[in-house]
Amino acid sequence: MTVTIVDVRAYDIRFPTSRTLAGSDAMNADPDYSAAYVILRTDHPNGLEGHGFTFTIGRGNEVCVAAIRALAPLVRGHTLEEFTADMRAFWRHMTGDSQLRWIGPEKGVIHMATAALVNAVWDLWAKVEGKPLWKLLVDMSPEQLVACIDFRYLSDVLSPAEALELLQRLAPTRAEREAELLRLGYPAYTTGAGWSGYSDEQLRLLCRQALAEGWRHFKLKVGLGLERDRQRARIMREEIGPGCTLMMDANQVWEVGEAIAVMQELAEFQPLWIEEPTSPDDILGHAAIARAIAPVRVATGEHVQNRIIFKQLFQAQAIGFCQIDACRLGGVNEVLAVLLLAAKYGIPVCPHAGGVGLSEYVQHLAIFDYIAVSGSLEGRMIEYTPHLHEHFVHPVVMRNGRYLPPLAPGYSATMHADSIAAYSFPDGPVWAEMQRSEAEELSE
Amino acid sequence: MTVTIVDVRAYDIRFPTSRTLAGSDAMNADPDYSAAYVILRTDHPNGLEGHGFTFTIGRGNEVCVAAIRALAPLVRGHTLEEFTADMRAFWRHMTGDSQLRWIGPEKGVIHMATAALVNAVWDLWAKVEGKPLWKLLVDMSPEQLVACIDFRYLSDVLSPAEALELLQRLAPTRAEREAELLRLGYPAYTTGAGWSGYSDEQLRLLCRQALAEGWRHFKLKVGLGLERDRQRARIMREEIGPGCTLMMDANQVWEVGEAIAVMQELAEFQPLWIEEPTSPDDILGHAAIARAIAPVRVATGEHVQNRIIFKQLFQAQAIGFCQIDACRLGGVNEVLAVLLLAAKYGIPVCPHAGGVGLSEYVQHLAIFDYIAVSGSLEGRMIEYTPHLHEHFVHPVVMRNGRYLPPLAPGYSATMHADSIAAYSFPDGPVWAEMQRSEAEELSE
Repeated sequence: MTVTIVDVRAYDIRFPTSRTLAGSDAMNADPDYSAAYVILRTDHPNGLEGHGFTFTIGRGNEVCVAAIRALAPLVRGHTLEEFTADMRAFWRHMTGDSQLRWIGPEKGVIHMATAALVNAVWDLWAKVEGKPLWKLLVDMSPEQLVACIDFRYLSDVLSPAEALELLQRLAPTRAEREAELLRLGYPAYTTGAGWSGYSDEQLRLLCRQALAEGWRHFKLKVGLGLERDRQRARIMREEIGPGCTLMMDANQVWEVGEAIAVMQELAEFQPLWIEEPTSPDDILGHAAIARAIAPVRVATGEHVQNRIIFKQLFQAQAIGFCQIDACRLGGVNEVLAVLLLAAKYGIPVCPHAGGVGLSEYVQHLAIFDYIAVSGSLEGRMIEYTPHLHEHFVHPVVMRNGRYLPPLAPGYSATMHADSIAAYSFPDGPVWAEMQRSEAEELSE
Repeated sequence: MTVTIVDVRAYDIRFPTSRTLAGSDAMNADPDYSAAYVILRTDHPNGLEGHGFTFTIGRGNEVCVAAIRALAPLVRGHTLEEFTADMRAFWRHMTGDSQLRWIGPEKGVIHMATAALVNAVWDLWAKVEGKPLWKLLVDMSPEQLVACIDFRYLSDVLSPAEALELLQRLAPTRAEREAELLRLGYPAYTTGAGWSGYSDEQLRLLCRQALAEGWRHFKLKVGLGLERDRQRARIMREEIGPGCTLMMDANQVWEVGEAIAVMQELAEFQPLWIEEPTSPDDILGHAAIARAIAPVRVATGEHVQNRIIFKQLFQAQAIGFCQIDACRLGGVNEVLAVLLLAAKYGIPVCPHAGGVGLSEYVQHLAIFDYIAVSGSLEGRMIEYTPHLHEHFVHPVVMRNGRYLPPLAPGYSATMHADSIAAYSFPDGPVWAEMQRSEAEELSE
């Protein structure tokens, strides 16, 4: 039996999160968490569909939708089996269109749109196999996994043979780690307490609540000016005590020299890492910061455009933590490449998962990473924020500050049809209502 | 008097160049040279408009148009004087939208769209001042020029004070170089002879024609396999002789190790540079290639996404030639930053100018560079290809293989209204006719 992708539908879905300042930080003052969302309709007798999306923060989501539509002919009319028979060729097909390549290559809007479609194909595959995505991956042999990866522009640091060796090392013991995760879940940290737009009182209260819920790892947004950063760091450290982990996140607001100077001051609060201290494109800048502020480590990734930048961040010893994003990178295939690069360089992977649906995605990647690639939980945590999970058919399940492995078939990307309809931009009822009431306010 | 930008119109313009294989290379097999084109309509009494575009090679041009429309509210309704009063703030305004930033930042589709709009504002400014863009820039003081540049993420290698010093050094002698260029023009090289899709006979013939027209610098597309590359290089070197310059361009097809191995073989043909030997994102890879193949030098830039990547290419001594692109970088402001970085590191700037309209744009930048920033023509040439100049109101003027400085006010970006109408995609008459005849061919 073959499954044909008979149609590709793209949706512009936006949540009006800027109204609450959840998600606010030094660079992103007012995000409306959004998804450029795609549904692959098929002729499968059970009506199985592939769902995928890329995440944005509002304006510009329509540009990603336009890019998904530009890529759609590469998928429409093909069978799933054509793609799964050679996943490396599939990924080259998606990223190698001779004209579309120009508007990347492999970066920004076109690459984020690629991720939405590539992830939707993996979601469909996992559903057809009746497995959660992580399990689909865990059940592949090292050879099959290597065959999913495009080594283009990586071969100077990672060959297919080396990747195979890395995977073979852990293959015999995969079952133990799978059983462990099913029992205990994957460690997580919370970003929900430390948004920059919150008052000191909110910050204090949210830290206490999170402690009570079982959280032991906390992230604080910084980059608001040294005095304000210091004040907020003091509050958080007071609340969580010396035994819990504190991470800091500057969301790219600093120059290289500024990052070094500020972090030398904030070191007294013993942060584990400083995340996005400067431009995500500045490999050599991150390396300079890392050298200057050790033992505090540098983390980045949510804006790292592709495997080629990650390769160099590793080569230059620029980061101590690798924060892959499930839809900034071009989907599962490229994530696999980065997991292997990180393993080669011994850098822990701690996925980015703010926003909408990113937690749902990245739990699969982190779980697979532990079982098949890294074999370690040391220094490894998935980000967690409490927002918008209710819109997913199979939302993440947390227990004691850990992600329990998802069991439903697919990549956990499927949104409720009601949510898609309600939050469609600009014509869905939520946005139409908002425009009406804003117009009324203006006329009052 | 103030000039208000009353409307922003975006157009999807495509030329069916893939039918001739002009523009073909190892990576871009069948480009349809295209422009995501923007017109700023104003209330100026003479009906002055700002014209700008970004260049693409066909599919995906509509995604850039969508991005221009997403950015348009940042320009629409503003006055030119608001922007020109503080060009640094203008550029931050265009690149700093708190939501749109997410789909870059400052790279790919959104940055190319930024360039179209930023360039259109500069075009409008130059027209209002009655000067060609290069002259508008040349007539600015070092302080005024520095005030156009956003030093964000550059301050670790270039401060405003240092930039000022670089500009002051040459300010007293600007007039001499301006007079020289007006008399003799700016040196150029031709890419028109060496496209990968041409036969050996065509290659030979086009070399002879170009020599007869006065060309002395020739670029050859390589990356077609060592034997084919060697054969074509031998033909070109035979035709142009030992006294002319031969450059090679691999358009990103090689791995790092492959680039080194192939270029060690092709060194016998004494190329000045190898352009785009590998991924444009691979700073450390370019540095490794540069070390291995000296004295052949490495060139790149047409796909270098922003000033931050250029900064690192300079820091890592990864390139010997800097090939800025007028609309891959985010418009004139960011180009100014890169010209100054290049001057600081002593790297010649040789702008990218294949495609449509890029020659029209970059001549202004190279002319300004010589007069005010580099002060030297050594190792400096603007690319030239003969295609599509007829669609511009003020096309480039070549004499003896040199660009004569444009004299018409503006940035030379204005296309004929007839061309805009004829080549609009997909509904303009040229494309409608093509679809009709292709449908007929299929039905025969």
